[in-house]
This record gives sequence, C-alpha cells and structure tokens, in this order.
Amino acid sequence: MAIVRFLKDGRVQGGSLCEDRIVSGGEILSLDQVELVAPCQPGKVVCVGLNYVEHARELKMELPDEPIIFLKPPTAVIGPNAEIAYPQSSNQVDYEGELAVVIGKRCKDVPAEEAESCILGYTCFNDVTARDLQRKDGQWTRAKSFDTFAPTGPWIDKIDPSQADITTRVNGEVRQKSNTSDLIFDVPRLVAFISGIMTLLPGDVIATGTPPGVGPLKKGDMVEVEVEGIGVLRNSVAL
Amino acid sequence: MAIVRFLKDGRVQGGSLCEDRIVSGGEILSLDQVELVAPCQPGKVVCVGLNYVEHARELKMELPDEPIIFLKPPTAVIGPNAEIAYPQSSNQVDYEGELAVVIGKRCKDVPAEEAESCILGYTCFNDVTARDLQRKDGQWTRAKSFDTFAPTGPWIDKIDPSQADITTRVNGEVRQKSNTSDLIFDVPRLVAFISGIMTLLPGDVIATGTPPGVGPLKKGDMVEVEVEGIGVLRNSVAL
Repeated sequence: MAIVRFLKDGRVQGGSLCEDRIVSGGEILSLDQVELVAPCQPGKVVCVGLNYVEHARELKMELPDEPIIFLKPPTAVIGPNAEIAYPQSSNQVDYEGELAVVIGKRCKDVPAEEAESCILGYTCFNDVTARDLQRKDGQWTRAKSFDTFAPTGPWIDKIDPSQADITTRVNGEVRQKSNTSDLIFDVPRLVAFISGIMTLLPGDVIATGTPPGVGPLKKGDMVEVEVEGIGVLRNSVAL
Repeated sequence: MAIVRFLKDGRVQGGSLCEDRIVSGGEILSLDQVELVAPCQPGKVVCVGLNYVEHARELKMELPDEPIIFLKPPTAVIGPNAEIAYPQSSNQVDYEGELAVVIGKRCKDVPAEEAESCILGYTCFNDVTARDLQRKDGQWTRAKSFDTFAPTGPWIDKIDPSQADITTRVNGEVRQKSNTSDLIFDVPRLVAFISGIMTLLPGDVIATGTPPGVGPLKKGDMVEVEVEGIGVLRNSVAL
C-alpha cells in the first residue's frame, strides 16, 4: 500500500493506493480520476553527489570518502506529470534518475542500524541539473535549484532499498540502468551521515545519487524514472 | 518599527518593536520580558558566497562574474541568544557576519528595479561555517548546514541596504568591519538573480555574503553581528 497525494476539487488530499484504487477519507477513487501531486512536501531536499562509481567516472570526478551533499530548494519540487521548465540561462539540462528516501519522523544523529525506523518510504526522483551552470559555478546549487528541477513521485512505497533496479528512459529509450546495490554509500549510511549534520523532519527527502548514463533533455522530451517496486515518475520538458 | 518574534507562555508570537517595547495583539511588553526567537521562519535560506572582494582574496578564491549561491537548511536557523553547537566532525568553526534580506511576498523573475517591493526588511545573519569541512568537500553545503549554523535576528527592520556598516565582534573584539557599499552584487541584483532561478516565498532569507576578516570560534565564545540601523545579533558557542 503506497502513500499518494492528489488534487481533487481544487484541494490537495492524501490517501492510500492499493493497486489502482485510492482510499481517502472513507472514499474510494480510481487512480485515473485524480491528478497526482508530489507525495510529500519536504522542508528540505538533501541530495547526494557522486554516489555511484561509474557516474563519478563519467563526470571525471574523484570518488569521495564521505558522501558529498547538496540541497535543492523545496520550491523545485514538482509531482508526477508536471512539466520541467527549461531555464533561459542554460543550454544543457540533464536528467538524473534517483531513488529517494522520504523521512517519517523527526530525527538527529541516527545510527545506521536504526535508520529504517526514521524512514516513511521510498519514491522516484529526478535530480534535474543545468550541467553547463554546474560546471561554470563550481558550486552545484544554482544548477540544481531551478523551479521544477526536483520531480518527485509518483507515490511513496516501502521497498528494500539495497537491491532495487533503477531505470531512466527518455522518450521511451533507456538511458540509465543500474541497481541500488551499486550505491557507494547505502541508505542507512546516508541517513546516519546526514542526520549527523542536520535534524531531519517528516517529509524531508534524501535523493541518493544518480547512476551512470546522465545526459541532456530537449524541450518536448518525456523523461521517466522507474525504481523497482515503486513505479514510474513521468515528466515532460515544457516547450 | 521592527518585526519581532518571541516566546511567551510557551508559544511563539509576533509583534512590532518600538524602541524597547513590543506591541503584540493589543498588549505592550517590555523587550526584556520575552525570549526572542528568529524573526522569520524561512522555507529556504539562500546564501551568496564571495560577495566582497577582500573576502574572496582572503580565501584565495577567484571573483565570480555572477553570484555564487548555496543553500542552508531551515533546520540550521536559530534566533538571537541561542547557542551555536560545535560539531564533533569539525576542528574549525568560523563566524561570517552578514546582512540578510527577508522576503515579503511570493515572487519570481523580479527585475532589480522592482526588488524592493518584494522585501519585507533586513536582519543580521551569521553564516557559521565548518571551514575544514568546506575545504575537504569542495561543495560547501555540509560545512554550512549543521543545526544552529544560521543565527538570524534579532529582528527585521527597514534600512537602506546600500550603505550600512557591518561589524562582527568575538568576545567584544572587532573581527570584521565593512560596509554593504562594498558588496560586489548589491541587494536588488541578488533578488533579481536568485528569483530568476527559484520562486521566493514570504519569510525566505537571502544572506548577502560576508566581508573580510572571517576567523575561528572557540567553545564559550560570544559572537556578535551588528548591522547599522538594525541591531546586534548575539550568540555564544556552546561549551
């Protein structure tokens, strides 16, 4: 049973998804009757860079001995089916498909072995990045902070995060194909590391890093991030 | 008349400060009767790096031709008089006194000449930084994201941000002394640049960068950031 949020009658509502039925406040709705929005409202989106060996190599960056983190602003979050906007200031906007962790309770200094108790579930995430601005600035924040650059969804589910296939497709063509077993720092270690820095709150998102195969999006493209056991996060790039 | 937030009867309340009197919901309170908290609750804290020529030089970093931005998480914000916690993972925690802008209304793509209409007011900010971790990571986020690393306050006031003295003292001794007229990118340009990337929301904070003279704090130190026309933000470093 997954956790969804959706727009109905002009209001955002929450519900539980069982197959293609949403149970919400005593009502049962069909998934195709509603417009899904991002399944959580993070106070912060903490992202991890260079967490797959082969992705660090393709960017010609050294492997870190501790996770490298950065933040995306909450205003970058969009839900499934919402459009990614191509900023005027960039000429190269890349997809980066990722597994994301959604935090379930306030926590600080969580040991890796207790991390699971702080996790509400998992969702798909696209760490959209203006690659040219990332290179220019050195600091990654601007390149990753544009409105719509954090597609999240389609819902939150419980999976085993240690061995889930992750696939990114552009216009139906596979561009990234990996498995979370290739993560350098796994989910419990990430929760331990990040909660050692900052208090995590319910709804906060940890994006665990992208596998190799990142590449550019064009206006009009449809990008899909699929994580095994969760589902497919689909977003098109606005014309 | 400045905007304050404070704890009274176990509840956070807002009010207007006139000299040393707070007007709040028909009541008049003395400033020394209440415990001030951070004057806003930012959904995001957008910081600007290397925005004073001499500070870039002291860090041996090149001057940027556009602002370099990074984010601090909202969980790092503390109010006046709250303690800065020294993380176990760092051996060099530096103060960085700054002028901060507090956003007053939702805005996106604001031209510099209209920036003022989006600003609620100004406050003092300390961009506390674990300098050793900043150097190690390359990316600045971890070093600047620890809980308590964003002291903000003591209140929000209207000033002319183009020519305000800014002073940082440690245990009463002046360590930074500059004027916001030395900013490379001034406040209207920063609002224009940042709102060109991300939607700004009421309460969001833009920290405008630190002047030269940054240096380390020790446990037990008292650090003060004073901006002319606003007041003094005082925080001690926890033992």
